[in-house]
Amino acid sequence: MTLGAHAVGRAGCPLCDAAGGRLVHEAAHYRVVHADEPGFPAFYRLVWREHVREFSDLAPEARAACMEGVTAIEACLREHLAPTKVNLATLGNVVAHLHWHVIARFDWDSHFPAPVWAAPQRERDALREAELAARLPDMELALVARLRSL
Amino acid sequence: MTLGAHAVGRAGCPLCDAAGGRLVHEAAHYRVVHADEPGFPAFYRLVWREHVREFSDLAPEARAACMEGVTAIEACLREHLAPTKVNLATLGNVVAHLHWHVIARFDWDSHFPAPVWAAPQRERDALREAELAARLPDMELALVARLRSL
Repeated sequence: MTLGAHAVGRAGCPLCDAAGGRLVHEAAHYRVVHADEPGFPAFYRLVWREHVREFSDLAPEARAACMEGVTAIEACLREHLAPTKVNLATLGNVVAHLHWHVIARFDWDSHFPAPVWAAPQRERDALREAELAARLPDMELALVARLRSL
Repeated sequence: MTLGAHAVGRAGCPLCDAAGGRLVHEAAHYRVVHADEPGFPAFYRLVWREHVREFSDLAPEARAACMEGVTAIEACLREHLAPTKVNLATLGNVVAHLHWHVIARFDWDSHFPAPVWAAPQRERDALREAELAARLPDMELALVARLRSL
């Protein structure tokens, strides 16, 4: 994907060089991608367009726009998938290009209630994962509409 | 601690019943506490005062106030401790009362670059942890001043 005339890319940064997932929506200052994370079908990321290291590097209005995007994802996940809980995180220890993880968690998922980065709590449930994945297209249609309205 | 006249407490919620850490600052809608998490001396939490489950349950102005508090913590950690990276997360799978983890991470800490919830990468460094802990009082003085100015 192209990052646009205003983007500041950093050579060798995987989130400057590639989308970082299946592109769902591209907004002025960020993109939303579906992350291919086995065991967690409803795992999305908001990737800030510019190569910025920490959340506090953003100006106040940019922070607000960023979190309204994150909130739109969370709200759509809740409305369409009724998760047990939504998890939000920006870590960036490996790829220090600002990105937010927005993850719908379910009490049947392999790690719940532990974080997705912790040790699994049980076997994966392929049937429930497939049922969940089948509901993503409708959710994403609503999400794109919501993101466009911001 | 008392939660104030406007707080909505939930019986049996550990973050309605107790501070959830050493109190650093109490603002109108949230408190900031130092978390006692072994291996991570500079681990803070912003705990929303009202018993709210998800970030998107907050009204837009409350979300903004919440994230400006989180950003103030992050900024003070960066200015005073120069961490390798700051990690922000709201999970709530176990305690579903809105709280943000704000964690200064260092390339020498026991888990870096993995999340603090993942498996450790190396032994803890007691000397560096103690040196870091010794710098927290000055950082917290600056943090309280910054939070009061919001």
